[in-house]
Amino acid sequence: MRYKVTIAYDGTNFAGFQRQPNQRTVESELTKVVNKMAKHPEPAIEVYGSGRTDAGVHALGQVVHFDMPFNLPPDNMRKGLNSMLPMDMEVLAVAQVDETFHARYSVSGKRYLYRMDLGEFRNPFKRNYTGHWKFPVDVDRINEAAKDLIGEHDFTSFVASGSGARTNFRTIYEAGCHLDEANNELVFEFYGNGFLYNQVRIMVGVLVEIGAGTRPVDGIQQLYKLNDRRYARRTVPASGLYLKHVYYEGDDPAHPTKLPKHQR
Amino acid sequence: MRYKVTIAYDGTNFAGFQRQPNQRTVESELTKVVNKMAKHPEPAIEVYGSGRTDAGVHALGQVVHFDMPFNLPPDNMRKGLNSMLPMDMEVLAVAQVDETFHARYSVSGKRYLYRMDLGEFRNPFKRNYTGHWKFPVDVDRINEAAKDLIGEHDFTSFVASGSGARTNFRTIYEAGCHLDEANNELVFEFYGNGFLYNQVRIMVGVLVEIGAGTRPVDGIQQLYKLNDRRYARRTVPASGLYLKHVYYEGDDPAHPTKLPKHQR
Repeated sequence: MRYKVTIAYDGTNFAGFQRQPNQRTVESELTKVVNKMAKHPEPAIEVYGSGRTDAGVHALGQVVHFDMPFNLPPDNMRKGLNSMLPMDMEVLAVAQVDETFHARYSVSGKRYLYRMDLGEFRNPFKRNYTGHWKFPVDVDRINEAAKDLIGEHDFTSFVASGSGARTNFRTIYEAGCHLDEANNELVFEFYGNGFLYNQVRIMVGVLVEIGAGTRPVDGIQQLYKLNDRRYARRTVPASGLYLKHVYYEGDDPAHPTKLPKHQR
Repeated sequence: MRYKVTIAYDGTNFAGFQRQPNQRTVESELTKVVNKMAKHPEPAIEVYGSGRTDAGVHALGQVVHFDMPFNLPPDNMRKGLNSMLPMDMEVLAVAQVDETFHARYSVSGKRYLYRMDLGEFRNPFKRNYTGHWKFPVDVDRINEAAKDLIGEHDFTSFVASGSGARTNFRTIYEAGCHLDEANNELVFEFYGNGFLYNQVRIMVGVLVEIGAGTRPVDGIQQLYKLNDRRYARRTVPASGLYLKHVYYEGDDPAHPTKLPKHQR
């Protein structure tokens, strides 16, 4: 019986999503709990995520799947997992899915948030939950520039080395930011069919520089032409990044299909 | 030269305010930095706080004082301290004061906040920053009951053992709560001339039970009559508590004077 599980986690105390020896990761905590619930079967049950998140990156709606040797009502599964998982993880939803569903290979899109604190001083309560930008920014200018991210583009200028992707072409459906006045934060939001390694953090770095006026408003277009990561410079900190939602084939009628195989 | 320093800290990774052997505390981090700035004088410089906060309790405006062997403009002192303090502490303000000022003995009042998350499920991002209450509460009923806290009372029913105070009489000037709808939290606020050990956390425990209807609306009056800590039962978690402001003699014209000596 295959379960699709949506989880939130505070990435602060994780060495990222992916299992690594002698490190506390999201995948290893989940794998431990799932195998304990199933009374340690041989071979052990594997947990598959929609993709990795780096150390310090948070999730409001990461998705994983795994196969259990028993049939449990989804809400019981949710409660059971939550009773065993550490306090910095929380299962939000559980669904039973058929064997064609794969948390990674069935992804049709992802939505990320980036929270950038605009306070003059660093805020000890936000250090793990936001990036920090203390120069004046023009939100309209950022949103004007962000339009150039929409559509299918070669994001070679926006990918960190070590990405391992077969191609740097990706399609972005939504990109922009708004000012959260109550929290004095700039909140960026991106929705696309997939994102390259560090792509969101590099895009935010370029956009805040455009907003501050240290890059021209057509800075995104320039980077497409240069096609070289070195010109994007700034990668904003992991602490402000949130994986907000993972879309699967058919979830979003406007963008129903997954990333072509050669792009994954 | 005496400096009055206002600091914020995220209490999550501190074993409280007060220095303790082999523990990371707010006082020990400050003492370390202050003595380093002064090039390790003998005897070492002492840092005096307005009072202790427990492990996990946060501060939006804790106050300390210390004497430095040199005269530095307050803003340079602020920047210097911040450049050396860890990221979960932040100096908000520095003032030079005369030698009659004492961070603890000159206190005329304190203001505390308590943030109570009302989400149905635990929220991994709030576990260190709020308490959690998942039953329906009536905010008006809480505020009706909280009026009984105002004034001078014997708070024996609201003090944890080990308080060490000479008397349990304290005066509360303001007490109440409001619903923070954006964050789905109940935010309690208390202002008084001083608070006993765990008093705020015990008062919040009583007030949420009144709000949930498991205690009568005159539950505070009942506790005054019983005059016994065992009837208050619940002490809500340290994670939701914030020392918001420390008032000194003359800071608040409505309540200018400090706690009488026999009550400290």
